[in-house]
Amino acid sequence: MRPDKSRVDLQRRMLLAAGASGAAAGLSGWSPASLGQTAGAKPLPAFAAFKDASRVIVHSASGIETRREAFGTSGVTDTDILFVRNNLAAPDASINANPDAWRVEIDGVANPRALSVGELKGMGLASVAMVLQCSGNGRAFFGHKASGSQWKVGAAGNTLWSGVPVKALVAALGGVREGMRYMTSTGGETIPPGIDPNSVIVERSVPWTAMEEAILAWELNGEPLPLAHGGPLRMVIPGYYGVNNVKYVKRVAFTVDETRANIQSSGYRVRPIGVKGAPVQPTMWEMNLKSFVTHPAGGSLRAGPTQVHGVAFSGGSPVSAVEVSLDGGKTWRAARFFGPDMGRYAWRQFVLPVTLAAGAHEITSRAIAADGEVQPEQRIENERAYAHNGWRDHAVKVTVA
Amino acid sequence: MRPDKSRVDLQRRMLLAAGASGAAAGLSGWSPASLGQTAGAKPLPAFAAFKDASRVIVHSASGIETRREAFGTSGVTDTDILFVRNNLAAPDASINANPDAWRVEIDGVANPRALSVGELKGMGLASVAMVLQCSGNGRAFFGHKASGSQWKVGAAGNTLWSGVPVKALVAALGGVREGMRYMTSTGGETIPPGIDPNSVIVERSVPWTAMEEAILAWELNGEPLPLAHGGPLRMVIPGYYGVNNVKYVKRVAFTVDETRANIQSSGYRVRPIGVKGAPVQPTMWEMNLKSFVTHPAGGSLRAGPTQVHGVAFSGGSPVSAVEVSLDGGKTWRAARFFGPDMGRYAWRQFVLPVTLAAGAHEITSRAIAADGEVQPEQRIENERAYAHNGWRDHAVKVTVA
Repeated sequence: MRPDKSRVDLQRRMLLAAGASGAAAGLSGWSPASLGQTAGAKPLPAFAAFKDASRVIVHSASGIETRREAFGTSGVTDTDILFVRNNLAAPDASINANPDAWRVEIDGVANPRALSVGELKGMGLASVAMVLQCSGNGRAFFGHKASGSQWKVGAAGNTLWSGVPVKALVAALGGVREGMRYMTSTGGETIPPGIDPNSVIVERSVPWTAMEEAILAWELNGEPLPLAHGGPLRMVIPGYYGVNNVKYVKRVAFTVDETRANIQSSGYRVRPIGVKGAPVQPTMWEMNLKSFVTHPAGGSLRAGPTQVHGVAFSGGSPVSAVEVSLDGGKTWRAARFFGPDMGRYAWRQFVLPVTLAAGAHEITSRAIAADGEVQPEQRIENERAYAHNGWRDHAVKVTVA
Repeated sequence: MRPDKSRVDLQRRMLLAAGASGAAAGLSGWSPASLGQTAGAKPLPAFAAFKDASRVIVHSASGIETRREAFGTSGVTDTDILFVRNNLAAPDASINANPDAWRVEIDGVANPRALSVGELKGMGLASVAMVLQCSGNGRAFFGHKASGSQWKVGAAGNTLWSGVPVKALVAALGGVREGMRYMTSTGGETIPPGIDPNSVIVERSVPWTAMEEAILAWELNGEPLPLAHGGPLRMVIPGYYGVNNVKYVKRVAFTVDETRANIQSSGYRVRPIGVKGAPVQPTMWEMNLKSFVTHPAGGSLRAGPTQVHGVAFSGGSPVSAVEVSLDGGKTWRAARFFGPDMGRYAWRQFVLPVTLAAGAHEITSRAIAADGEVQPEQRIENERAYAHNGWRDHAVKVTVA
């Protein structure tokens, strides 16, 4: 039931769209110094004050990134370091004081109604391990100074969510009305006065079949969902980019058309550099095939045995293997997976034991999916710098003494 | 290679040993009021100050329990609520300031030597999801006021550990010397002056074959291992009771005999009430088959649909099914598993959707293992109140209005 085709189509259409501005951008613009590695001096915003400041990079009050070296090797990204990205200012913390009282309206079903989180808790229970990743993760590696947070690898994390399966909810309300093609979720942020709501509202449509695995979640990593991550209630769609996982969700509607909100119609659209966003362009739905090394994270190392490790994931065909290169992609060696397999939407951890000789090394990884797809070398140039999964830019440069 | 037999033998031997004092203790001594449910007013000790005080019960400076209702449904027990149990005062926090400098001596191998954590990190990498559980978890349900922390269900958690596989280490040091039957781990706590070290040292022996899945771990749930949980380095043995997972481990030796330390020779021995501990009695190695309900956690509920959920685990034959009873064990219904399967040493979450009618309900669960074993109804009476897996005592009493 999952529309895997949409992801493949996205890549093909991106290639077509990107043709004019150069799909093979190569190494241009890549240097550690250009990647903001000295950022992080900004203070944590109040709603994310619980984050571990020493292990994150604060880009802005609504953009916090996990440091590459902070991911560790246990398979789940602790909430204390998980990235934060809000498109609008978060609602007041008071909305999360009594989570069970929060209400969500369900529409486009036979029997539409509003339900409280307390009611949802009686209607079903599911838990999923999945990668949550911002569409712009890897933006810092692009060369054209795309607007938005300059994420490197850390606008992604492997997370555990619990809540009610959307399909259980839909079944209880008589099923989706005929002819509906999208599931449209609306965030509960306050719209600033004097502004056209459509210009800022967080409202995203995804193919309605995504409801098969979607969860309305009230728990993250074993704890009540914090405001910074969408509490009291968040739409969670395994395999889809972060923006579709609408926070403070106040309405879920099955609809004939995609929402006309800017965040859907022109935002999160993949198009050539310099082109404005429009509904005909591919939108950020399912995540592409990606991996990156988390250790070493760069800098200097002593010669000797080292475990090169990292993470691999996909919103489409699941990851089946990972290869690691120590020489910037000239030669590759098979890594092995380690740790628990938490399911197809989680990331797998990989490791390759190596003995690094003195000198410079460029270490990177490429994932291979069950359907044979290989993570590409190059990014696809695009205006907003979305969907970067090119292994070359994600390489770490290490000097061994 | 896993000595599953030892667990089965333990149960048989416990039954034999317990015969005199009554294996079928039934409901005697069980009442919510007797279980210390109003505890928790004690302050958190300094080394565990990061715990979430509202979701744990502080029994003592070295005994902190997760509240039944705090486990959530995401599958991993957050470090902020994970139970703490130390047999000796933890070492000074300074030992965890530079974890890579901590040294562990490896003995009973062809080429014994001491290694720093920094060196271990080059020698291999593994990660495991596993239940960590205190031998005395469930002690509060016994009727004979056994000494020790009065744990209910929360001296257990599902945890993610990363470190070097012990077998990789052993291979690098030339293998285990011939004739060795135990793997003996020694904790790095300071022995108070004027005391026979053997009387207090934390030193535990397990069958040497346990090394097959053991890890020397420096990471817990994605973060550097905190002092409260054994950092800089802990011996982690999937499937074994907590005491064998030696904290601040400073020595791992393959040995012909079990250590003579009291914690092995007389402590953690299962014997009839009133009998002193001795090496001939079964010791607390592999965990038995167990499950318990985490929601509802007791008290009052409103009538209507509810998701009864909980966790099930085993150190032996893996859990294959769970049944739930709403009537104190008269009738049973099959629950289903939900959430990621993190492997045989992790716990599985189970759920049963029910509609509770007005009145009193006694809700409990029983796990069934792949080898056909069924979690028993009754505890086995024993002096120190270890290994409680009886489903009757673990029931929650709920009043539905």
